Amino acid sequence: MTDSSRSEGAASGEAPLGEAAIIAGFLAPLAAGFPGAMGLTDDCAFLTPAPGEEIVLKTDAVAEGIHFRSTDDPADIGWKALAVAVSDLAAKGARPLVYLMALSFPQMPARDWLAGLSAGLSQAQTRFGLHLAGGDTDKRPGPVTVTITVLGAVPTGRRVVRAAARPGDTILVSGTLGDSALGLKLLQEPALASEWGLTTQEAAHLAGRYLRPEPRIGLRAAILDEARAAMDLSDGLAKDLGRLCLASGVAGIIDVDRLPLSSAARKAVVADPELLAAVFAGGDDYEILATVAPESADLFIAAAASAGIAVTVIGHIGDGSGVRFLATDGSELALSATGWDHFGG
Amino acid sequence: MTDSSRSEGAASGEAPLGEAAIIAGFLAPLAAGFPGAMGLTDDCAFLTPAPGEEIVLKTDAVAEGIHFRSTDDPADIGWKALAVAVSDLAAKGARPLVYLMALSFPQMPARDWLAGLSAGLSQAQTRFGLHLAGGDTDKRPGPVTVTITVLGAVPTGRRVVRAAARPGDTILVSGTLGDSALGLKLLQEPALASEWGLTTQEAAHLAGRYLRPEPRIGLRAAILDEARAAMDLSDGLAKDLGRLCLASGVAGIIDVDRLPLSSAARKAVVADPELLAAVFAGGDDYEILATVAPESADLFIAAAASAGIAVTVIGHIGDGSGVRFLATDGSELALSATGWDHFGG
Repeated sequence: MTDSSRSEGAASGEAPLGEAAIIAGFLAPLAAGFPGAMGLTDDCAFLTPAPGEEIVLKTDAVAEGIHFRSTDDPADIGWKALAVAVSDLAAKGARPLVYLMALSFPQMPARDWLAGLSAGLSQAQTRFGLHLAGGDTDKRPGPVTVTITVLGAVPTGRRVVRAAARPGDTILVSGTLGDSALGLKLLQEPALASEWGLTTQEAAHLAGRYLRPEPRIGLRAAILDEARAAMDLSDGLAKDLGRLCLASGVAGIIDVDRLPLSSAARKAVVADPELLAAVFAGGDDYEILATVAPESADLFIAAAASAGIAVTVIGHIGDGSGVRFLATDGSELALSATGWDHFGG
Repeated sequence: MTDSSRSEGAASGEAPLGEAAIIAGFLAPLAAGFPGAMGLTDDCAFLTPAPGEEIVLKTDAVAEGIHFRSTDDPADIGWKALAVAVSDLAAKGARPLVYLMALSFPQMPARDWLAGLSAGLSQAQTRFGLHLAGGDTDKRPGPVTVTITVLGAVPTGRRVVRAAARPGDTILVSGTLGDSALGLKLLQEPALASEWGLTTQEAAHLAGRYLRPEPRIGLRAAILDEARAAMDLSDGLAKDLGRLCLASGVAGIIDVDRLPLSSAARKAVVADPELLAAVFAGGDDYEILATVAPESADLFIAAAASAGIAVTVIGHIGDGSGVRFLATDGSELALSATGWDHFGG
């Protein structure tokens, strides 16, 4: 599949954009709110940390054909590239500060495409409260790639990590699971909407969760004050909870009937029970998985609610290792898929 | 050209490496010296800034076929990927702290190749004094790409930028120019060594400058204490000085006869005067270009000398704009090439 909007520049005889024109025209405006970016006219950016805070760091790449589709609106691509990186900050209870972005294109992007990418990034910046601090732009073969490094801040010493879950902890998850994976299926095969019996609004909800994920930055206070361990869900509950349990040296026991599903996802699963795999193992949820001491669960849920974010108890941490999915009758579900590994082929 | 060492894994029937095995086996050891990396078992890393310092940030990508050759030793690739990013920190007088690395491969890399990459990164880390803090590893089409974000520190408020050059400033450059571009030519056509009349040592010097650039981190004190404006030379003197002058709103006047050449480069230019273009416009020098108040030039040179780094006065800043290259007789050189633009194709 070719990207008609991206090759439009060449086709229409538009003068090709150079690196300097891309920076001045489309990237520098994204840095305007952060003086340390030096207007993107320097090789480096400068960030003055606030006293009493430490810096939280994360690098994430999204690539055409893997993390987004070449036909996606470039504004959605820009939003998503920043959102998936900010989601990791959100899981640490970090306040987003700035990001650096390395762009690569196999061919000169058209002005319209760049304007769209930049608009999506700008909308995401405004929503998440951070600015572009610097970057790198290269033309090279392969898919369009947006590699983002985000920096956030937490109070010094307040490190909420994967490896701190303890037996007895309650497992919580924000929002609903599987929507994004189902949204991608819908985008690939729109006829599924009527097979699943979705309203127009429900179909749009699922697609929107894939195209414009919302990092849960509103959970900052809940995570910093109440969470023992936390991470964001990018590769599916089964795989990501498995990672948290492995890092903590504990087991995770999930009560399948408590997993939070949107009305749209519930309809899809009723229509095709195989789709339950999207709930356990679908990627791109960008919800927060947290474990808390049992006595803190209500406080976490209340703090989240005051930020307008629903949080659900979905299980508990036990001794041992691995993740088990139990139904209400005590039977254990064997999963056919265990998540979405970038190297899983 | 295929990279036989990288595809060896598949050919030899070696079990393919997954992302987790790559992190545990080859990347986590690079993070061992930095506790905030959490052993690469978390989504994020944590960096506690030192009081009185601000953070200097830079993202840089190197790609197979553009910034390195597929036949290059993976240890050289690792070294160079980190060196080119650290070079930007060096130009700001920054103390390297940590880096994040996004790797992408079109196919599963062989253990030997990864071990080589990791060894080169480890050698560079030790030399430059920083550690891996986190990263991202993806399989996707296109060239092998190593995207590095480096963080360094300078005393708060000590920002040495491109845009601060003033008319009357002396222009200084570290080391020698053009070696790397000539080294690349030699690597592509080894017979040139005898055409240029080089000793084995001289040929190795040029190739080494391409394969293992040395960021000038030893210039930290000179830059912080004496420089008005500074940047590193990655795209050639003509283009990079042009950028500095543009950002500062000044003109650069270069005394061509003072440009520092290695004995090897001098022999090459004598043998083929066209090669002078490598000195003006060759990429990958990774030397420091600085402007200083005239009364500070000797102090800068002395501070550099005490770090074992030669620095040469090559011209001065004037009113106006653009860069002029003047010979001793006052005649102006017209350059056939103006540097190496990533988008210049």
